[in-house]
Amino acid sequence: MRLSNAIYPGSFDPITYGHIDIVRRATRLFDDLVIAVVANPRKKPLFSVTERVRITEKALAECDICGVKVIAYDGLLIDCAKSHNVQAIVRGLRANSDFDYEFQMALTNRDLDSDIETVFFMTAGCYSFLSSSIVKEVKRFGGEIKSFAPKSVEQALAHKFE
Amino acid sequence: MRLSNAIYPGSFDPITYGHIDIVRRATRLFDDLVIAVVANPRKKPLFSVTERVRITEKALAECDICGVKVIAYDGLLIDCAKSHNVQAIVRGLRANSDFDYEFQMALTNRDLDSDIETVFFMTAGCYSFLSSSIVKEVKRFGGEIKSFAPKSVEQALAHKFE
Amino acid sequence: MRLSNAIYPGSFDPITYGHIDIVRRATRLFDDLVIAVVANPRKKPLFSVTERVRITEKALAECDICGVKVIAYDGLLIDCAKSHNVQAIVRGLRANSDFDYEFQMALTNRDLDSDIETVFFMTAGCYSFLSSSIVKEVKRFGGEIKSFAPKSVEQALAHKFE
Amino acid sequence: MRLSNAIYPGSFDPITYGHIDIVRRATRLFDDLVIAVVANPRKKPLFSVTERVRITEKALAECDICGVKVIAYDGLLIDCAKSHNVQAIVRGLRANSDFDYEFQMALTNRDLDSDIETVFFMTAGCYSFLSSSIVKEVKRFGGEIKSFAPKSVEQALAHKFE
Amino acid sequence: MRLSNAIYPGSFDPITYGHIDIVRRATRLFDDLVIAVVANPRKKPLFSVTERVRITEKALAECDICGVKVIAYDGLLIDCAKSHNVQAIVRGLRANSDFDYEFQMALTNRDLDSDIETVFFMTAGCYSFLSSSIVKEVKRFGGEIKSFAPKSVEQALAHKFE
Amino acid sequence: MRLSNAIYPGSFDPITYGHIDIVRRATRLFDDLVIAVVANPRKKPLFSVTERVRITEKALAECDICGVKVIAYDGLLIDCAKSHNVQAIVRGLRANSDFDYEFQMALTNRDLDSDIETVFFMTAGCYSFLSSSIVKEVKRFGGEIKSFAPKSVEQALAHKFE
Repeated sequence: MRLSNAIYPGSFDPITYGHIDIVRRATRLFDDLVIAVVANPRKKPLFSVTERVRITEKALAECDICGVKVIAYDGLLIDCAKSHNVQAIVRGLRANSDFDYEFQMALTNRDLDSDIETVFFMTAGCYSFLSSSIVKEVKRFGGEIKSFAPKSVEQALAHKFE
Repeated sequence: MRLSNAIYPGSFDPITYGHIDIVRRATRLFDDLVIAVVANPRKKPLFSVTERVRITEKALAECDICGVKVIAYDGLLIDCAKSHNVQAIVRGLRANSDFDYEFQMALTNRDLDSDIETVFFMTAGCYSFLSSSIVKEVKRFGGEIKSFAPKSVEQALAHKFE
Repeated sequence: MRLSNAIYPGSFDPITYGHIDIVRRATRLFDDLVIAVVANPRKKPLFSVTERVRITEKALAECDICGVKVIAYDGLLIDCAKSHNVQAIVRGLRANSDFDYEFQMALTNRDLDSDIETVFFMTAGCYSFLSSSIVKEVKRFGGEIKSFAPKSVEQALAHKFE
Repeated sequence: MRLSNAIYPGSFDPITYGHIDIVRRATRLFDDLVIAVVANPRKKPLFSVTERVRITEKALAECDICGVKVIAYDGLLIDCAKSHNVQAIVRGLRANSDFDYEFQMALTNRDLDSDIETVFFMTAGCYSFLSSSIVKEVKRFGGEIKSFAPKSVEQALAHKFE
Repeated sequence: MRLSNAIYPGSFDPITYGHIDIVRRATRLFDDLVIAVVANPRKKPLFSVTERVRITEKALAECDICGVKVIAYDGLLIDCAKSHNVQAIVRGLRANSDFDYEFQMALTNRDLDSDIETVFFMTAGCYSFLSSSIVKEVKRFGGEIKSFAPKSVEQALAHKFE
Repeated sequence: MRLSNAIYPGSFDPITYGHIDIVRRATRLFDDLVIAVVANPRKKPLFSVTERVRITEKALAECDICGVKVIAYDGLLIDCAKSHNVQAIVRGLRANSDFDYEFQMALTNRDLDSDIETVFFMTAGCYSFLSSSIVKEVKRFGGEIKSFAPKSVEQALAHKFE
């Protein structure tokens, strides 16, 4: 009997309702889902990797999403994927600005290990232009972000910007 | 224990190595895969739906892909998906020219039945600009298509263009 | 005192909630808004221009939008715009697949009459992948379109597809 | 009688003929236009916000554009827009690389205050690939920028790069 | 000593200033340039292939471009290219909507004959959104096209639409 | 007799098989090709300009490409192009994410010197999502890059990351 596990990597700086939408949908197709928070993303993150793991866990709990493990990883994603014994890497596609970068990463990861497949989910329309950067920018200047991210994320941002 | 079945819809007029690449990858993640050939695609097809089902079956056999059922369908894809009891619709993304149409269809299908998820696979780099139209155009004018589609597809095209 | 009138051209075959979203927003910025239904759009329409004008009027009434005139026009949009004495052409931008065509039309219209400005509104996220084609395709095959267009549009489509 | 005021935000580091083209067109549709120079843009600016306000004012004067107020702002654009009592935010669209970011900002601003509408003008073809970055890069290495920006901008850049 | 000849294929239905801009630039890099008018383009042309060859020749003469041969061809472009002994296929890139189709054709042609290279020239900014379709649409409804195409093209269109 | 020389500028940090593919194709059309390594690219490079010139030379030798000169340059590309007496600037187009930036640079360079033409080659499908950044990222974390770049590049990266 086939077991289908997947990993959902990202910087989650912080997690938004866009990410949570992808998590919900991936959990319906895969037996196990691991959220992998990259320790050293390309852009310097606002939150440390430890903070990002904790904020992500809290946000999932607040949204009543159970059974999803959140881990931190460093190095090559494909090595992390192999060590967690997954068959798939999950990615969300928002607007098509993501597309080329995502394609590049998917092809690179396939080249590194052709046994692990990247599958893409479309972000729901209402979240298709939402990003962690927007959430941070709005909150930094005192704007309301409750339609963008859970309460626990708002609190983490409020605390960080104090 | 979760069963994960998927449907891969398209016009397959005719099937190419790009489609076959998606089929191979989808069969690694899903327990069962059904290829659903749409009877009346937007663009008038070169081959009848019966021909397209048969060509697709032959091409899969030629590529040693077993256990994938090929069916014809008419009407709404989502109804076809429900009647085959699948959890996912599989689509291949080629260059990003596909993206907007694919996004539109995925959101529409989710609106029609939120229990069936659309998942996307990236077409391999070497096939990322390959399409059924190109294959037909090249063959029509006597060009060589053996790097684009299996031998059985070439024969079907040769026969059609005679 | 400056008067600001605008024209919103399109095929409206049929009008959707995406169009209605643009109408609502344009009426907040312009004193008068005219919806101009093109008699002979590029793609052969499902409804005649008379039907499209009537369906649009009914849909606006159903959505409690008052004071917007719906007309049919043939020929160059810019001539229609001049005869209605408007200062602006309103267009909605959905996903970026629209962009190049819209840019082309805007530049052409500016070339033809530089006194009339094209202004763009962004379609709301939830409608950003909605189109008249999708609405027709879903309804044709018996799908539910109530989240895509008003009741009166659904009835017109039901009647047409009978 | 409706009053229609608008705000045109940006980093203007420095202003180019592309921006000036948008200003000219926006002033034809709106009663009052305010240029809002963001104090702390995402990319570290070459000029201070005070310098950018002054260069923008000089460039407008040089181009015989009167009645447009130039201000600096910090914080959320939507708060600046409200405090200036505008009905619209004006943005220029260049090539479609802008599109996704602009869509994201427009949707975010609508979420923050649905009474203020973002409207887009298409940059004229000849300026559609012009940017402040290009102007700075060319001038930095001694190239000629007179078809890209007014004389006063060139002088400001010459002075900065001395 | 290397001889560099090139072929510039297209439907030229009719030729516009955008095409002529590409011709001018290609003639500066290549020793000989052949314009190849495709007899049966994807979209049904307004003018017959004989008319399109003649209109193209007249337009080139009107623009004082000498030494460029205009031919009609049918079948595979690559066969036409080989029979004219060229080393390169010239294509113009307008807005990026062209890109995917062009990439697809270039890769297909390389697959068919790797000795002939496709090279791309960027259409000048002011022509970057100009197309034969726009020229026909504007002229059909009585609009002015003198900034889009030479006088001889306008006359051919006037005659056709009479 | 026309002499056709070209320059291929870039940061080459480091050179990949994607770049080498462009070099091979450009050398078939131009009599002389100069690779111009920009001293101060926009993004801070991993390797110094001297290292990048040396790595590029070694990689070309390893791939048996002769007669291509590698130089470093600072300042405006167009000045470098003029001093090397070239008729063309060569650029590779990968996925269409490159397009807008490339268009912008091509139009800027034409504005600066209309005698030098920018010509574009399409990167082969299998390299169309390959970039120097990916190569560096994969190698940094211990991944295998032999399908991305020559052995000498891998050694240079290994040495740098030690």
